Amino acid sequence: MEFDKLVHQPTRLQLFAYLYRHGETSFSDLADDLDVTEGNLSSHLQRIEDADAVRVEKEFVDRKPRTSYELTETGREKFEEHVGTLEALIDGLDNGG
Amino acid sequence: MEFDKLVHQPTRLQLFAYLYRHGETSFSDLADDLDVTEGNLSSHLQRIEDADAVRVEKEFVDRKPRTSYELTETGREKFEEHVGTLEALIDGLDNGG
Repeated sequence: MEFDKLVHQPTRLQLFAYLYRHGETSFSDLADDLDVTEGNLSSHLQRIEDADAVRVEKEFVDRKPRTSYELTETGREKFEEHVGTLEALIDGLDNGG
Repeated sequence: MEFDKLVHQPTRLQLFAYLYRHGETSFSDLADDLDVTEGNLSSHLQRIEDADAVRVEKEFVDRKPRTSYELTETGREKFEEHVGTLEALIDGLDNGG
């Protein structure tokens, strides 16, 4: 059983789950909903972006800059694989295997 | 959503899952079955023991020393809580919540 540290780290696991579920989300919504500091959020998003698992979009909304994040196909696959590993671990508990 | 780092760290998560499922297990069986080095295993078991989540038993079997590990009630509870958190995360994916 292998865990991908990119996805397994607690804050990033929540980020992946959030983006997987909600699709494209602004930086400020992520910071609010996940209850992490902006500095912490930035550094985790950067690491996920470096792995090509998230795509960043910068635009202006009502003349204010807005930065949004969305999982790439790679990101969705990595997360799905990770959930599969966790499900296997949990399922194994009942089987005495 | 809170992750307990004691349980969440990948090697320890596998250790918890293994001990939860198999009950008391010798050090050498753990090292074999989890495919971790003895040094790595020792340090993770020590950390789990420091948190009172595992109990150690030393005995002689055929005149050879044998060290075994078993989750304490605290250890079982911590692991069950963690699995509950993971299940909530996974279940949430379908609900768009």
